[in-house]
Amino acid sequence: MSEQHDAVDIIRAKRDRQTLTDEQIDWVIDAYTRGAVADEQMSALAMAILLNGMDRAEISRWTAAMIASGERMDFCSLSRPTADKHSTGGVGDKITLPLAPLVAVFDVAVPQLSGRGLGHTGGTLDKLEAIPGWRADLTSEAMLRQLDEVGAVICAAGSGLAPADKKLYALRDVTGTVEAIPLIASSIMSKKIAEGTGALVLDVKVGSGAFMKTEADARELAETMVALGTDAGVRTVALLTDMATPLGLTAGNGLEVRESVEVLAGGGPQDVVDLTVALAVEMLAGAGRAQDEGEVRAALVDGRAMDVWRRMIAAQGGDPDAPLPTARETETVLADTDGVLTALDAYAVGVAAWRLGAGRARKEDPVQAAAGVELHAKPGDRVSAGQPLMTLHTDTPERFARAREALAGGWQIGEAEQAGSRSVVLDRITAEEADR
Amino acid sequence: MSEQHDAVDIIRAKRDRQTLTDEQIDWVIDAYTRGAVADEQMSALAMAILLNGMDRAEISRWTAAMIASGERMDFCSLSRPTADKHSTGGVGDKITLPLAPLVAVFDVAVPQLSGRGLGHTGGTLDKLEAIPGWRADLTSEAMLRQLDEVGAVICAAGSGLAPADKKLYALRDVTGTVEAIPLIASSIMSKKIAEGTGALVLDVKVGSGAFMKTEADARELAETMVALGTDAGVRTVALLTDMATPLGLTAGNGLEVRESVEVLAGGGPQDVVDLTVALAVEMLAGAGRAQDEGEVRAALVDGRAMDVWRRMIAAQGGDPDAPLPTARETETVLADTDGVLTALDAYAVGVAAWRLGAGRARKEDPVQAAAGVELHAKPGDRVSAGQPLMTLHTDTPERFARAREALAGGWQIGEAEQAGSRSVVLDRITAEEADR
Repeated sequence: MSEQHDAVDIIRAKRDRQTLTDEQIDWVIDAYTRGAVADEQMSALAMAILLNGMDRAEISRWTAAMIASGERMDFCSLSRPTADKHSTGGVGDKITLPLAPLVAVFDVAVPQLSGRGLGHTGGTLDKLEAIPGWRADLTSEAMLRQLDEVGAVICAAGSGLAPADKKLYALRDVTGTVEAIPLIASSIMSKKIAEGTGALVLDVKVGSGAFMKTEADARELAETMVALGTDAGVRTVALLTDMATPLGLTAGNGLEVRESVEVLAGGGPQDVVDLTVALAVEMLAGAGRAQDEGEVRAALVDGRAMDVWRRMIAAQGGDPDAPLPTARETETVLADTDGVLTALDAYAVGVAAWRLGAGRARKEDPVQAAAGVELHAKPGDRVSAGQPLMTLHTDTPERFARAREALAGGWQIGEAEQAGSRSVVLDRITAEEADR
Repeated sequence: MSEQHDAVDIIRAKRDRQTLTDEQIDWVIDAYTRGAVADEQMSALAMAILLNGMDRAEISRWTAAMIASGERMDFCSLSRPTADKHSTGGVGDKITLPLAPLVAVFDVAVPQLSGRGLGHTGGTLDKLEAIPGWRADLTSEAMLRQLDEVGAVICAAGSGLAPADKKLYALRDVTGTVEAIPLIASSIMSKKIAEGTGALVLDVKVGSGAFMKTEADARELAETMVALGTDAGVRTVALLTDMATPLGLTAGNGLEVRESVEVLAGGGPQDVVDLTVALAVEMLAGAGRAQDEGEVRAALVDGRAMDVWRRMIAAQGGDPDAPLPTARETETVLADTDGVLTALDAYAVGVAAWRLGAGRARKEDPVQAAAGVELHAKPGDRVSAGQPLMTLHTDTPERFARAREALAGGWQIGEAEQAGSRSVVLDRITAEEADR
């Protein structure tokens, strides 16, 4: 039987709500990676998976097959345990920047392979590239050396990890098949498991600025990923965190580096500090180096995390003392009435920052290091008419008008005193809960 | 907004069970035809349509957009009305051969654009090509001239009709998206409507040898197609006909021509004669030249249909008097017990004929003119142990073994007298019924 017939049989099986066998999954991922299954066949299968689902065993096998399509990293030579974090992406999510050096303080190595932004969510590498001289691309040897010497590295993932995922992700993007929880979960987890980390903490965001708009979807994704990590022998836990409003007071590459440095200097916005500490506590526990929250907070205040940060940036060619780029032009958005800021929509702010030049529409587009949105008030804050609510930064002032359009209706000032800001961490999902 | 984004929006809309707008349908068919929508996008959309369906207005617009992708034929210059027949395909279905000349006897022009076989069902053009000298390819001018002079033509469809359908059909074949009733119906009807016929009779087959295995599916397909034809201003009616057992006593190209000539000579198997007459009565009524059944049967018996057949074959270079090719080798399949033949499976016979060389697995494969299966008994017939049930014909005797494998279990000889053969026409579906 020709290979094409096998592909059609597998598509028809999932189309007809059958469970795919291990052999079918292994074959289709391998054949797709080497081009024997065509893009139009894989997109039909992806649509059938999106509409008909996969069970836990199928998703686990699918993930394993994607890992088997490429290389695996190995951190066994390190003297320290490793821990890694993955965020599903949000607006103002600069947490990786203070988090990696903070965890490294406690003798846990943090190999943080990161990506670039697309659309309204930013990318960690884009942010760090605002630092003069900093380089995202490291060889595996340089990465291992830095982990050994500094304890933390944030760099670009090599193309050798899960090439099937890379190909499938690009296909899903143009075929309306991104929003399939089995495929999202296996995409994320194939890369994280192939990285070879011992412990993994997932930051699954929920709200307007997140990929998952509802808590039910976010919970399903979190449970699926925790189960996948656990099945693969990685100690995995997920936090469901709020993305109804931006994290911190900045969205934009250089602006977020500045805020991260404030956190590493013992200051910074409370939500950024709280989430950084919560994730660090989970990573340390997963790596077998549990610390209580107070100990972790202390490492931000006493300068130990900042020391690791400075060495981490310098090891990749960056100058931690260099001034960050500033935007050529700024405009201020003012409050139109007195009251309490009751809502500030993450998606609106994310799109505004993107339009100002902080993000990209296509993978090959450049980003502006200094563009973005700086917030002067957060939900729960009392504001007065005429007071600045936010400052827009860009090198290309013709973009202000479209950024303001994105922000229109994106915030509300209420009459009455509202409940204060809610906690950024909404829930915690462990392997036991994912099993239920 | 780029065209790619439009495609993704349309895929997501159908994925999320929305109704596609006229503009979305027009755009996606046009953009697919000119290559601006990629195969992997169209296959994802086809899978979403297969799983989530389309309503009558969507299917109608989809069909109209496929027609608009190419040329339309125009038979207005003819002095006679036109009528056309389409069969969804079966085993031993040679009905087009006697039907086209029979209808032409009554001063209705029959422009029968036909195809080649694939898999276990035969193709009308493959059958006629068993006649020495006969050519399937005609220019539009030659086709019109023959319609004017002879009244009937059976030839290959030009590539200008519904090119979107041609491209989409090839895609569906390799992506597990063939079995979507909206797409099957619009594929068939786009070509038939573009052909410009005034009346159309659909022969929708149901049973093991047909594409539709259940009467419910066949009825849904028939109703969908009748509604599409009616919406496009074509007088359309469908007959649901039996394909549990082969039509007539032959399956194979030259063998079926021989049987068709027997019917045109006033003889032939009863089921072939009955179905030919039933379809002719419908075509004549649709074309406004209604005849009763007796009049139509008379034209087979008195040689008028044979006269048209001979002129039709000769007009396309064929010699109606030339002997048909005979197979190099034959083998006989014998009854193993006494009794009544209670079942003879159309699919088993179709696959056997295919394996003997009458059919093709891929479009570019040749077929054998003389290969096939000749039946000596039909369900309801009494047989004796050792009596020939069928004769297998092929030029390549190494194929006998695999043909016999296909036939294993394909017939049953029962102890008791069974009910006789059922009528070949199971039901009739008109525009009024399709509307209910």
